[in-house]
Amino acid sequence: MNPTLDVLYQRRSVRSYRDEPLAAEHREAILQAAFRAPTAGNMMLYSIIEVEDQVLKDRLAETCDHQPFIARAPWVLVFLADYQRWMDAFAYTAAPQRAAELGLPQRAPQEGDLLLAMSDTIIAAQNAVVAAESLGVGSCYIGDILEQYEVHRQLFNLPRYALPVCMLCFGYPKREDPPALSPRFPAEYILHRDQYHRLEPQDVQAMTAPIEERYHANGNYIAGAQNLPQHVYLRKFTADFSVEMSRSARAMLRAWCGEEE
Amino acid sequence: MNPTLDVLYQRRSVRSYRDEPLAAEHREAILQAAFRAPTAGNMMLYSIIEVEDQVLKDRLAETCDHQPFIARAPWVLVFLADYQRWMDAFAYTAAPQRAAELGLPQRAPQEGDLLLAMSDTIIAAQNAVVAAESLGVGSCYIGDILEQYEVHRQLFNLPRYALPVCMLCFGYPKREDPPALSPRFPAEYILHRDQYHRLEPQDVQAMTAPIEERYHANGNYIAGAQNLPQHVYLRKFTADFSVEMSRSARAMLRAWCGEEE
Repeated sequence: MNPTLDVLYQRRSVRSYRDEPLAAEHREAILQAAFRAPTAGNMMLYSIIEVEDQVLKDRLAETCDHQPFIARAPWVLVFLADYQRWMDAFAYTAAPQRAAELGLPQRAPQEGDLLLAMSDTIIAAQNAVVAAESLGVGSCYIGDILEQYEVHRQLFNLPRYALPVCMLCFGYPKREDPPALSPRFPAEYILHRDQYHRLEPQDVQAMTAPIEERYHANGNYIAGAQNLPQHVYLRKFTADFSVEMSRSARAMLRAWCGEEE
Repeated sequence: MNPTLDVLYQRRSVRSYRDEPLAAEHREAILQAAFRAPTAGNMMLYSIIEVEDQVLKDRLAETCDHQPFIARAPWVLVFLADYQRWMDAFAYTAAPQRAAELGLPQRAPQEGDLLLAMSDTIIAAQNAVVAAESLGVGSCYIGDILEQYEVHRQLFNLPRYALPVCMLCFGYPKREDPPALSPRFPAEYILHRDQYHRLEPQDVQAMTAPIEERYHANGNYIAGAQNLPQHVYLRKFTADFSVEMSRSARAMLRAWCGEEE
C-alpha cells in the first residue's frame, strides 16, 4: 500500500470542523491540485469560486437543502462548468468571424459541451479533495448546489455558460478519531465485464446487506420503510430536494442550451 | 510536498503503453480506489464496465473519434452514470407501492438525478486515475465516449438509466522519461473570489500566453488560426466530434428524461 492509496482508501466526508481558518499553504496546495487535474484538450472548462463572504455562506447553507454546517465551514469552493471564458475569448479574438472567412461552421455551446465541461469540473474538484485529505484537511461534497439555480446565478453573478455543478466544504476535522468508513456495495454489483448486467431480484439482499447492517447498528430507516431501497426511495429519491434538483437542473440546461434570451 | 501531492502535480495523460497486461493487483487497487470515492448519500450512482473483449475495444477506437491507441490499451474502463440499479432495486422491493400506501409521491429519474449521478461517476473515475498514477500506471480520459450514444448503448447492452459519461485507458507508459507537463492557464483566470468575473479583452493575451508558447515550440495551429482561441474554436469547438457529442448528449438526455418509450 503506497501513501496515496492509503489517502484514497481512508477518506471520509467531514462536516464538523475546528473553528480555525485553513492555512494559506494548504489552500494553495489544494487549488494547485485542482489546476493540475486532467482536462479535455487542455481547455480547463471550469471555474472555481472561493466563497469568503459570510453572507454568501449563510445563504448557501439555506439554498443547499438547509445544511447549517456549510455556514461554519472554514473554506468553501463552488465549482462551475464554464464555457463562458472560452466564448468570451472566441469573441475577443473574432474566432467565429475567422471561421466564416474560412467558409467553416460556427456554433454555440450545447449539451455535449456542458457534459464535457462537467467532467472537467468534477475531475478538478476530486483532485482538490484528495489533496486536502493528504494534508489532513477534511472535505465534504455538497451536491445540493445543483438546486436553486436562479438564486445561485444571482448570488455569484453567473453568466449564461457558467453553471454550478458541485461545491466543497473544507476544514480541519473536529474529531480526532475518524468515524468508521461507510460500507459500500460489494464490487460485483458495480463492476461489469464487457456487457451491462442488470440487477436481479435475488441480488438485492446481498447487495444491500453491508449497508443495511450499518443502518441497523446506527439508527433506523425513515418512517414506513421496510428495507434499504424503500428507505432510499422515500428519504432521498422522492424527497423535496430531489424534485428541486431536477427542476433546477432543467433550468440550467435551458440556460445553457436554449435560445438566447 | 507529500507523496500524494507529488502524484497529483506530476500526473500526465499517457496514450502510449507497453504491450503488457496490467498486473491483477494493480487493477484491484485501482478499482478499490474508485469504489471508495465519495458518493452522494452513499448511493454509488455509477457502474464500471471493464472492457476485455478486443472486438469491443476495436469498436471503441472507432466510435470515440477514431483514436487507434484505445484498441491497444491494456485496460479500458467505461464509467456509467447509473440509476438503473436503484430503479430495479426499488421495483423489486415495491418501493413505489410502499410510497403510495403511505400517501407519498412517486417519481422517475430526471435531469437532476442524472447530473448528480454524473458527479458520482466522475469522482470515482478520478480516484481511479490517481490510484493508477501512484502505482506507475498511465491513464488517459476519453471524453469521446459521450459521442455515438446509440452505438454504445447497443455495444454494452445499456438499459435506460445507465449512460456512458467517461472512459479511461490504462497501461504502463512506454516512455521512461515523462514529457513536460502541459502548461495551464494562470490561476487568476480560473479562480474567482465571491463573484464570477468575466474575462476582459485585455486578459486574453496573458491568459493564453503559457499555452501559446507551447504551441509555438511544439507545432502549429490548425490552418487559418491566428491565435490560441481561434485554434481552439476551429480545431475543437466546431470540429465534427463536438457536433456529434452534443447530438449524442441530447439523445442521452432524451433516453433518461423523456417519456417512456
